[in-house]
Amino acid sequence: MLKPIRRVTLERRTGRRARRISDCVAVEEPLEIRVDGESVAVVMRTPGDDFALAAGFLCSEGVLRNSGDIGVISYCPQADEPGRANIVDVRPTRPIDLSRLRRNTFAASSCGICGKAAIETIRVRVPRVRSRVRFSAALLRKLPGAARSKQAAFELTGGLHAATLFDDRGSLVDLKEDVGRHNAVDKVVGTALLADRLPLDRHALLVSGRASFEIVQKAAVAGIPILCAISAPSSLAVQTAASLGITLVGLLRGDRMNVYTGFARISAAAR
Amino acid sequence: MLKPIRRVTLERRTGRRARRISDCVAVEEPLEIRVDGESVAVVMRTPGDDFALAAGFLCSEGVLRNSGDIGVISYCPQADEPGRANIVDVRPTRPIDLSRLRRNTFAASSCGICGKAAIETIRVRVPRVRSRVRFSAALLRKLPGAARSKQAAFELTGGLHAATLFDDRGSLVDLKEDVGRHNAVDKVVGTALLADRLPLDRHALLVSGRASFEIVQKAAVAGIPILCAISAPSSLAVQTAASLGITLVGLLRGDRMNVYTGFARISAAAR
Repeated sequence: MLKPIRRVTLERRTGRRARRISDCVAVEEPLEIRVDGESVAVVMRTPGDDFALAAGFLCSEGVLRNSGDIGVISYCPQADEPGRANIVDVRPTRPIDLSRLRRNTFAASSCGICGKAAIETIRVRVPRVRSRVRFSAALLRKLPGAARSKQAAFELTGGLHAATLFDDRGSLVDLKEDVGRHNAVDKVVGTALLADRLPLDRHALLVSGRASFEIVQKAAVAGIPILCAISAPSSLAVQTAASLGITLVGLLRGDRMNVYTGFARISAAAR
Repeated sequence: MLKPIRRVTLERRTGRRARRISDCVAVEEPLEIRVDGESVAVVMRTPGDDFALAAGFLCSEGVLRNSGDIGVISYCPQADEPGRANIVDVRPTRPIDLSRLRRNTFAASSCGICGKAAIETIRVRVPRVRSRVRFSAALLRKLPGAARSKQAAFELTGGLHAATLFDDRGSLVDLKEDVGRHNAVDKVVGTALLADRLPLDRHALLVSGRASFEIVQKAAVAGIPILCAISAPSSLAVQTAASLGITLVGLLRGDRMNVYTGFARISAAAR
């Protein structure tokens, strides 16, 4: 079992002083994701929740929809340690179309369809999120503090992103940490998928960094109606959230927040 | 020409007050990179310096080595606006092996080579960085302030990463901003490649976020001996910097910094 944190020796310089110390860094290792033994992706991730990561990744890519689609998930049985712990194989219960997974790297676009080729190839087909859930602004303001208090590995390393899932009473349902922003979200979505809790249509997802197009798309695939980011969103995150019916909150810090889309889901209630 | 910043209307909540305002967000758009008309990658980037990004990306992937390898770089001439601005085609002067580019997504590993398969597929063949350049700790401490004062788009949006290149006197040589950390580095490396300034063996590169395996590898491909990050490095960044002969500095903030590898290049000189 690979660990999420590793000790390293380093030289700390403070002013003109230098001293050797031992400190923790977040572990980054490649995870190869296979479907029926065929390699479909290598993601740089922090070890832990690897099955959830693989399931969430394949769900985000539109390949898996629920736990019934998965027969077996396992570390590659033929490989030796330590390589074994970096390869996860997913055996689906029905034949799946792997060509979907190639869209990111090999857009099969000829010049005849240049106009929208690039953007179309990166878009996963996902229905608009329909949920009548409402969160008060007062409740949303409490989420960063609640998430931060549970970020064990971040406190030690300063080098991990977190994705945190909350229910509509503001209770923390799940928190995953990873060197990759996308992986942290995939781990949350994959955990819910494996427990057959999708869609997460009464929930809010908080990400520790910025909100990009891909993060919004991953939230939509999981049916999450409210996405909050500590930092700023990109233009395409705003545009995609609007078109997919997601409430996008950015710069959620202290007493302030920016609501970019889906204003109606944020109430002014006192708690 | 696509712009790097876009205005959006949003609702700002402060305490119980809500008001509609107009604010700036960083633009995120897909850029399709083609080689001889064949699509090899789609990266989510902030428009601007697209040719440098394409050149830097292909250099980082080990496909291009210097400006002599490039015949023509152009936006796809057949496409209509606005799609045209999101497709860059690179015509190399010699035949290149596109199979290298497939490594990230489709590791052609059979189970027979499981042990190191995943990690080997992500590694680009790059020689160890050899440079006798030295930077004083005092000089390194000034770099974040110098970079920050030039980050025009970040100031407006709060949503952009920066990669900044400095020479050995601490002069700012280049600064690129992008929603993607990797893209910002690729733009800096690509700009140097197009100007025939590789290797950057008398330089230090400062990145605004964390240092990951891929950032270290990109620095190594460009021959950069000193890589500094405002945030923390990952375990694989430390390991890769050590094996590639790069001095890795993390958590470069205020009076303090952590030097993880290549201590000898950081002197204690007063300036």
